[in-house]
Amino acid sequence: MKIAVMGCGTVGSGAVDILEQKGELLSSVCSGEEVTLKYVLDIRDLSARPYAAKVIKDVDIIVNDPEVGVVVETMGGTEPAFTFCMKCLNAGKSVVTSNKELVANKSDELFEAARRNNVSFLFEASVCGGIPVIRTMFSALSANRLTGFDGIVNGTTNFILTKMSREKMSFETALKLAQELGYAERDPAADVEGIDACRKTAIMASIISGSHILPEEVHTEGITKITLEDTAYANAADAEIKLICRAERMEDGRIHASVAPALIGRNEMLAHVSGVNNAVTVRGDSIGEVFLYGPGAGREATASAVIGDVLECVRLKRNEDHYYWQPHKEGVLCEKGENDAALYVRGYAKDPARAMTEIRETFEGVRLLARDNAPENELAFITAKAKEKELREAVGDIRDFAAASVIRVL
Amino acid sequence: MKIAVMGCGTVGSGAVDILEQKGELLSSVCSGEEVTLKYVLDIRDLSARPYAAKVIKDVDIIVNDPEVGVVVETMGGTEPAFTFCMKCLNAGKSVVTSNKELVANKSDELFEAARRNNVSFLFEASVCGGIPVIRTMFSALSANRLTGFDGIVNGTTNFILTKMSREKMSFETALKLAQELGYAERDPAADVEGIDACRKTAIMASIISGSHILPEEVHTEGITKITLEDTAYANAADAEIKLICRAERMEDGRIHASVAPALIGRNEMLAHVSGVNNAVTVRGDSIGEVFLYGPGAGREATASAVIGDVLECVRLKRNEDHYYWQPHKEGVLCEKGENDAALYVRGYAKDPARAMTEIRETFEGVRLLARDNAPENELAFITAKAKEKELREAVGDIRDFAAASVIRVL
Repeated sequence: MKIAVMGCGTVGSGAVDILEQKGELLSSVCSGEEVTLKYVLDIRDLSARPYAAKVIKDVDIIVNDPEVGVVVETMGGTEPAFTFCMKCLNAGKSVVTSNKELVANKSDELFEAARRNNVSFLFEASVCGGIPVIRTMFSALSANRLTGFDGIVNGTTNFILTKMSREKMSFETALKLAQELGYAERDPAADVEGIDACRKTAIMASIISGSHILPEEVHTEGITKITLEDTAYANAADAEIKLICRAERMEDGRIHASVAPALIGRNEMLAHVSGVNNAVTVRGDSIGEVFLYGPGAGREATASAVIGDVLECVRLKRNEDHYYWQPHKEGVLCEKGENDAALYVRGYAKDPARAMTEIRETFEGVRLLARDNAPENELAFITAKAKEKELREAVGDIRDFAAASVIRVL
Repeated sequence: MKIAVMGCGTVGSGAVDILEQKGELLSSVCSGEEVTLKYVLDIRDLSARPYAAKVIKDVDIIVNDPEVGVVVETMGGTEPAFTFCMKCLNAGKSVVTSNKELVANKSDELFEAARRNNVSFLFEASVCGGIPVIRTMFSALSANRLTGFDGIVNGTTNFILTKMSREKMSFETALKLAQELGYAERDPAADVEGIDACRKTAIMASIISGSHILPEEVHTEGITKITLEDTAYANAADAEIKLICRAERMEDGRIHASVAPALIGRNEMLAHVSGVNNAVTVRGDSIGEVFLYGPGAGREATASAVIGDVLECVRLKRNEDHYYWQPHKEGVLCEKGENDAALYVRGYAKDPARAMTEIRETFEGVRLLARDNAPENELAFITAKAKEKELREAVGDIRDFAAASVIRVL
């Protein structure tokens, strides 16, 4: 079986290295069938690479070569990745991708093409790098009605939040450090505004719902408004603030999907996910929940997931009907805030004693928080669980109280 | 596709319930193919069950029915489970089992029969209940040379150790509580002596090594010697004591496989596995490591893994060559203590000041530990990492010092 890799950047070159260096191992998990790299498609000059003779610049060489059975897409972005993948699927080749933007936006067309041509389209590496989240949801938990997930799927923001919580580093300083270490882009918006996490959430929420959920349908909030005051209060409540992607199946069957900061008690595994690591807790009606944790990015770890999928394609040699969701449809998702949640609130009161009395009266079971060196007019509290939308409205109604921070509590 | 379940105990009846109640869901992950329960083999009186009409007492009814494609074995024990499974495999039926004793001892014959008959033999539920450990090692990480694992795979001992650490409950009291709650058998030896963990370790170590490792080849130690003094010192070192199953690939390629208590720093995820939960950290050369956590036992969770395997058999319809290891051979394992480790030591000295001087001289980089209310002649310390066997000898050589506890530190 011959393999082509389209896009020889960080992940692509990692996949190429595994194919070039581990031939014997790869063959051994495919009943002895040889798994060999034939082409590397890239517009850059790769003439110094040991595999320079395999580098091509025209995708049609791959499309028209009947020897190529599986194509790896590690170019990133929607185009030309989408056009190239469709060409390969329509030529009867299985496609493996690490491209979350592609899967989150274009799965309907890609799945349809894969089915029509009886080939596989696999995308384990598109969510949480090397952690087998997709495979676990689709395959290991296939006897379950999946009911939801909570995840930390963006390493950059988790690195920043870890530094803020453990070292009292400001958001700005932690972001700068993340940029210096190469964890964050010069334009960090995709990470800190939650856009990257939103795409991964859309993919996982599509599995939960069984039909395609688009990134723009996921209620998305970043971490730019989190302050050291908030992390101090979270720590005082024996909790951590994390950027949590979440989907839950409501009683009426609709899905609530969101990316937003949340307070998580330290009795939960997710609270212990530190630095650039990723983790997801998946819930199903039989399993209860299972928690997966590991490297959510990185050249070798992500390439491990890509080549794991390549080997599955080689073994299966045909379309795998269970790695799919239905096309996008209306009415699947519910409105923002329809879910139940407890809220953490930090704000400033004209008359703190009076505001506190009103807060106690409004929010039954409220828990007041304290931190060192808080200004006298600062109040922070955690409400009991209720419909999130109504809680937020009630917070807005507290007289002479300006909420500076309102964060979900898991 | 018709399914038979052999053994309708806790796990088997959970599998039967999923088959009976989730027909539509199961069919949807098998391209619409119906997955139906046809027989339940059990010697007990199940006439009050809703599926009483399907209950049979003669295995040959299953063996001779060409409609049955997949057989679930949830009887437990080696016999008659082994004979029944061989009959089914030789009749061209795939077999799915949750039976760790069977897999750990009889995999060579079972794998050979499955291959010869071109059917599947899957055993996800035999290790860590509902957590997809086997599938992750064989399939998701198939691009990796697996280098080892650390796991907590016995819920009973983890429950006891959690109670000892968090509530200062004695081993005896915690064991009694575990028995009252139904977590431990009246004869708790299989759990507290590490026998159950040893079988699961043998299965996972066989995947790491690529050839069958027998339970009796795994160096096994239970938790009966752990005392509240040890958990107090562990907590003072910001660590927890856990019963850890472990395999590691040594530099010469041999495998060191063991089940033994170990101190784990609270910066490690395994330290946060509490109560009856299970978890495994798997290591591979590309992924680095991935951590899986969840319910390691229980009716629904284990049945979830069993039926996940059934659905894989239905989809594959043929032998899956990558879910195997080679038959048992000599020279795969290395001797006990050939591995590198740091050691925790607690003991009693005739002359504590003199012994402490000798300990500091003998163990470079030693870290002395303290706890409240320790007797004056008690000493506890953690050595630096070195060959475990040599460290243990050096501990024995300390003059006028009686070691009461020697535990590995991860």
